[in-house]
Amino acid sequence: MKEISGGVTAPQGFRAAGMHCGIRANHDKKDIALIASDCLCAAAGVYTKNLVKAAPVYKTMANLANGRAAAIICNSGNANACAPRGADNANSTCLAVGAALGINPDDVIVASTGVIGQELNMEPILKSLLPLTAALSTTGGGEAAEAIMTTDTVKKEIALEFELDGKTCRMGAMAKGSGMIHPNMGTMLCFITTDAAVAPAALQRALSAAVKKTFNRVTVDGDTSTNDMAVCLANGMAGNAEVMGDSAELSAALLTVCTHLARAIAADGEGATKLLECTVRGAESESVAEMLAKSVVGSSLVKAAMYGSDANWGRVMCAMGYSGAPFDPATATLSFESAAGSVTVYSGGEALEFSEEEATNILSQKEVAIVVSLRAGGGEATCWGCDLTYDYVRINGDYRS
Amino acid sequence: MKEISGGVTAPQGFRAAGMHCGIRANHDKKDIALIASDCLCAAAGVYTKNLVKAAPVYKTMANLANGRAAAIICNSGNANACAPRGADNANSTCLAVGAALGINPDDVIVASTGVIGQELNMEPILKSLLPLTAALSTTGGGEAAEAIMTTDTVKKEIALEFELDGKTCRMGAMAKGSGMIHPNMGTMLCFITTDAAVAPAALQRALSAAVKKTFNRVTVDGDTSTNDMAVCLANGMAGNAEVMGDSAELSAALLTVCTHLARAIAADGEGATKLLECTVRGAESESVAEMLAKSVVGSSLVKAAMYGSDANWGRVMCAMGYSGAPFDPATATLSFESAAGSVTVYSGGEALEFSEEEATNILSQKEVAIVVSLRAGGGEATCWGCDLTYDYVRINGDYRS
Repeated sequence: MKEISGGVTAPQGFRAAGMHCGIRANHDKKDIALIASDCLCAAAGVYTKNLVKAAPVYKTMANLANGRAAAIICNSGNANACAPRGADNANSTCLAVGAALGINPDDVIVASTGVIGQELNMEPILKSLLPLTAALSTTGGGEAAEAIMTTDTVKKEIALEFELDGKTCRMGAMAKGSGMIHPNMGTMLCFITTDAAVAPAALQRALSAAVKKTFNRVTVDGDTSTNDMAVCLANGMAGNAEVMGDSAELSAALLTVCTHLARAIAADGEGATKLLECTVRGAESESVAEMLAKSVVGSSLVKAAMYGSDANWGRVMCAMGYSGAPFDPATATLSFESAAGSVTVYSGGEALEFSEEEATNILSQKEVAIVVSLRAGGGEATCWGCDLTYDYVRINGDYRS
Repeated sequence: MKEISGGVTAPQGFRAAGMHCGIRANHDKKDIALIASDCLCAAAGVYTKNLVKAAPVYKTMANLANGRAAAIICNSGNANACAPRGADNANSTCLAVGAALGINPDDVIVASTGVIGQELNMEPILKSLLPLTAALSTTGGGEAAEAIMTTDTVKKEIALEFELDGKTCRMGAMAKGSGMIHPNMGTMLCFITTDAAVAPAALQRALSAAVKKTFNRVTVDGDTSTNDMAVCLANGMAGNAEVMGDSAELSAALLTVCTHLARAIAADGEGATKLLECTVRGAESESVAEMLAKSVVGSSLVKAAMYGSDANWGRVMCAMGYSGAPFDPATATLSFESAAGSVTVYSGGEALEFSEEEATNILSQKEVAIVVSLRAGGGEATCWGCDLTYDYVRINGDYRS
């Protein structure tokens, strides 16, 4: 498995484009993306668990029910959630994309991201479809990835090559997500393409398993969005024998892609100055480890301390304590780690002496790991988040985003 | 029932004092409080649900197991949680207070609040007991309330008179809490005194019921503390016939006292500029209403929008959607209310037109209510929180608190 360039257009038979259509006032910000496969794909999706779901989420769930799709349309600047005529507008978008590409509108995946509660302006979307379709290209992955950004400060994409059945397959992906990010979802917006041949049921199982260990272990602010979805299209053009069951290679590729994007989303959390990674080892089960690690990266007090590069480890113990997961504080060992080194601050029920200067230096790096070892079993999990900063408040307090 | 002055020393037979003993470096900040009853009291307590509990919480749980207590000692500046010799130090504190007051050390309630993970320095505590005992006075409630403050910016106390069995009874209370405040606890530090005669079991039931509807409906930052406790002492000096079962008057007095302090804690949340109150009506049950309202006041995105006085109601719908509680968005009506008026922004599944200027004016007040009406039943609950501000980040990022 090796990383390559090209994002969602790295796999054979996928073209993409992104442009400004006018949903946003700012002409410099692309606001619509289209991804199209040259043939019908096996398709799988996971969706937000939020009870208040955006209209495009419902539409995509319906269109993916048969495990097939051929194109993805996504706008930024408006979430089409709790919005007048939401279902009609999601439906019209699919009809128009189907007509523009000459495909069945039920094979179109539709997604939106942006402000909740405002009617989606259909005119710029409909007007954009002709130029957008004309712009589709096998090198358009990067432009599409730019077009779905909202408060994201960096474009998030990845592509890689892997072997299946002696054939070289490719997988590409793009994602957006910066605020309203919290575990318990099929998360944020993430679109994955691959030219591997995979049966829909096998693709769904592999995608769900990868999301569980990656996007569902990210939190920025504890707010689960109304619009989250992660979708994978597999068009089979690599020529491998169709994957019908579990494939270690496919699962590894999906896990690599989703881990990369999950970390990128956490690192680019609204206002974030650093990526937080919490790993809990030795828990009585993986799910216990996950609950403990999620609670740590989700704690406002831990996040604020990390912003201040303050080794306030009591807040880590506190957050594990209220996680709802069982553990024995007397057996816990707690360390902070980064590129600048490692410091153990608590072990066996005892606070340890440590150098505050050394700890501050370790915590001042761009990526900081909080590592907890227990002695209750083999359960391990890593969750990701970011620090809580003045800029998070500015971004979310100063204007409607 | 009428409000009176005097805090925890308003009821007959209670004396209190607060002073600086030296746990904190700042000589201007009182850091130890003592409350003593002239006779043994019926006593009830509720405690943090955090699995990581501070040593004084365990000690108080043990000492209150027999439903009796006579004094409360509380220091600020050090939480005595995850700290070396924590249990020994909580125990020594009770022994020393018992000796200083001439009472059984098992009748002493001990509480601590401050930094987690540092050893409690016993010398200033032990040295303070003689002057603290000498300073005990029937007008010392205010000084005691000051001594338990940490990041609190205002002293939180209340007292009132009520009738039981034809006798005038008094109830006084003090509380602290500003950060590490989140529902699911017996919460923060709150000490309530009353001269009513109440059997321990009846007092425990009434206190638990009041806490459930007040402190357990407050959140500042989603972090449940290791040191929370709410304790009530009833010394019987009002001369009423002992309350053995449910008393509407006693319950009303406790609810009034706890509601006042819960609101005071939310309004004084770390960095807060305004009190948020979310009321959900017409839910299928009270517990559903509570889950929905708690999720709204706990949402970082709602809190940041309220800081910016931004009527971003989509975030309110989103927070209810991920609360885990069932409701039908199509039947929801959503309004913002304050002293400046009321604006309805969403009703029957539809976004409503409203004046942004009017909404901003309503949201710019010191107390803002988010009111949600459903049409699913008679369940109603109110939860309290505060806005998320730059100062929350400053307070929790810039130094170990």
